[in-house]
Amino acid sequence: MINSERLSSRIEELSQFGKLPKGGITRLALSKEDKAARDLLKKWMEELELKVVIDQMGNMMGIWGESDTPGIAIGSHLDSVKEGGNFDGPVGVIGALEVIQSLKENGIKPKKPVILINFTNEEGVRFTPDMMGSLAFAKGIDVEEAWKIKATNDGKTIKECLKEIGYLGKEIPGTVNIENYIEIHIEQGPILESEEINIGAVSQLQGIYWTEYILHGKASHAGTTPLSMRNDAGFVAGCMIKQIRKLAKKHKGVGTVGVCELSPSQINATSETVRIIADIRHPKEKKLGKFQDDFDAYVSKITKKEGVTFEKKELVRFTPVQFSEKIVELISKKSSELGLTCTEMTSGAGHDAQMMQRVCPSAMIFIPSKDGLSHNPKEFSTEKDIENGAKVLYEVLKELIN
Amino acid sequence: MINSERLSSRIEELSQFGKLPKGGITRLALSKEDKAARDLLKKWMEELELKVVIDQMGNMMGIWGESDTPGIAIGSHLDSVKEGGNFDGPVGVIGALEVIQSLKENGIKPKKPVILINFTNEEGVRFTPDMMGSLAFAKGIDVEEAWKIKATNDGKTIKECLKEIGYLGKEIPGTVNIENYIEIHIEQGPILESEEINIGAVSQLQGIYWTEYILHGKASHAGTTPLSMRNDAGFVAGCMIKQIRKLAKKHKGVGTVGVCELSPSQINATSETVRIIADIRHPKEKKLGKFQDDFDAYVSKITKKEGVTFEKKELVRFTPVQFSEKIVELISKKSSELGLTCTEMTSGAGHDAQMMQRVCPSAMIFIPSKDGLSHNPKEFSTEKDIENGAKVLYEVLKELIN
Repeated sequence: MINSERLSSRIEELSQFGKLPKGGITRLALSKEDKAARDLLKKWMEELELKVVIDQMGNMMGIWGESDTPGIAIGSHLDSVKEGGNFDGPVGVIGALEVIQSLKENGIKPKKPVILINFTNEEGVRFTPDMMGSLAFAKGIDVEEAWKIKATNDGKTIKECLKEIGYLGKEIPGTVNIENYIEIHIEQGPILESEEINIGAVSQLQGIYWTEYILHGKASHAGTTPLSMRNDAGFVAGCMIKQIRKLAKKHKGVGTVGVCELSPSQINATSETVRIIADIRHPKEKKLGKFQDDFDAYVSKITKKEGVTFEKKELVRFTPVQFSEKIVELISKKSSELGLTCTEMTSGAGHDAQMMQRVCPSAMIFIPSKDGLSHNPKEFSTEKDIENGAKVLYEVLKELIN
Repeated sequence: MINSERLSSRIEELSQFGKLPKGGITRLALSKEDKAARDLLKKWMEELELKVVIDQMGNMMGIWGESDTPGIAIGSHLDSVKEGGNFDGPVGVIGALEVIQSLKENGIKPKKPVILINFTNEEGVRFTPDMMGSLAFAKGIDVEEAWKIKATNDGKTIKECLKEIGYLGKEIPGTVNIENYIEIHIEQGPILESEEINIGAVSQLQGIYWTEYILHGKASHAGTTPLSMRNDAGFVAGCMIKQIRKLAKKHKGVGTVGVCELSPSQINATSETVRIIADIRHPKEKKLGKFQDDFDAYVSKITKKEGVTFEKKELVRFTPVQFSEKIVELISKKSSELGLTCTEMTSGAGHDAQMMQRVCPSAMIFIPSKDGLSHNPKEFSTEKDIENGAKVLYEVLKELIN
């Protein structure tokens, strides 16, 4: 039912836009590489006789079937991070394209429209925030405001860039009538591969809290300052790094310190200042809050004990998202019917589907990522895994449009 | 017996060479600022009718009294770190000058020569290693080799710089016959000030081990990688920072991490690589070794547990130095006779006296540092404290040369 070869060769064809010498791609949102990828997708959608609609945020839609009934949206994004891989995004867009083409080839006539969507700027590397196209689609950001956002690399505004690449549409984002949204995506983590499971039926998306702490201690001589007289911001940072892991275990969430900058950064001096950022995630909002509160209580205690002060800045507060139980069950059921192993799981990363859940019941289909790698030129999913994801979407969609 | 005003005004006069707009000095070894300070010292020594001798390392000696008997050396250094203070070094050199002048003014005739020394490049900022002049004096480095050492800032060799500033002498370092060496120095730590003690009789100098660890983990997504599947070099680094403090307490030494660099340094990624440097100090060689061994055992354990590998590089291995009991007791006795409180103590920092201990029984006289600050423009010792240090040296020296 799915032409796996066509599907994978299209993903490979897309990978030429922004291709890096050592593999992988850099295809930032609204760049000339993004334009090239969009143009090819547009050509493919037109060849499939989908009605192509571009909205004011540059979100691309390919609509199959004309009807006033609410439709089923499927898709993902074509932009990438800097030095990213070929699969994060394109698997969802091209997988959706393949599913529509296969349904058509198999003579299926949809009772509801099917809307293929390529969302603008999911990655948020060239323009902040990320998931911007789907956010605008869900009315979470005003288009006029979004247009003024400037690129982090060359300072051009979104509107300028949309005009420049020819994707400034007239349609107001989110006006198309949608009943459900389903997205195939690579897991970007190691669970499916390590547990040898074909499909993840994503039932929820973790909440994400990013908090920056600036610790103010005192730089003093590492040889002459007794331990009891130190105000070592670096020591506090070390304790925080260890504690976040301990609390993540306790609360069954995840917690990470990826940024920790010691200053003055001298071998023989304690740290005067540290900038440290805590990344705390949990699928349950209450537990996420408790995890953060516990961590903050620890920071207060350990800084006080060491005679260090701190300022705290909330960088990100994304609450957890619960996807549609009905669609998740359908994904599980169809996987099983296809002879594929499937597990309900939580997405650790953010996705357009979390914005779409604000609009309509949504869910995601995860496929394995080799070594759990993503945002990396070595990101990889096998042709078979991609085919599996598309097969499941095919069956789910077939049921939903009937 | 000591002209405190003259002593402090000379230290202040020296502070003009390399003066920074906001206080403090930058007077790197063999710079034009160092030359200016040296020229002024030379003038003062000549006014005191000391015989000025410059050796091949640029060490400056001012000799009082001619005799074949071994002499008593006193002094310190005039170079500073980048953005350092006015007291680290000059207090010892100008204090020694003042003691000689006062002894002369009081009609003392030395039975042994007194040798005032200003050692070259104690700080080791412009040229590595530090304490270079005294090291050469103690035959710990070959002059021909030392001459080839290049400046970290402009690449000039020591020999070129010595020639350029006119301090390339002919005397072989360490040929002058010395019985004892005594150095006044600011504590560079908070103990004397916080315990309200006037004088530190420095009986030993901590051993210093600097070890660099490069931790190799895996950068993975902070949201999608379960805790149990992480190889987070940053987590290991946090544990090491906390552990070094724990072991320092256990072994009654000091331990510090001042340098800890996470890479890729992304909020939402675990660390692929960390460069972390451990500074471990203890006054007893055996305990220092045990402390380091315990730390290394911990690093092996925690890296293994996290699935992180590491390379280790020994940057510095300075064994502890025991100073002359006889002189330390004399410092205590003379302080007491002068009505000054005194404590035997350990130096946490390195000093020229540790090199001179290789040549002859040596010791140091510490005076309080305000807030324990040093290597900082805010470094400060009061006129009274400096006078106290000089008074003690005056009495100690008077006894030793009689």
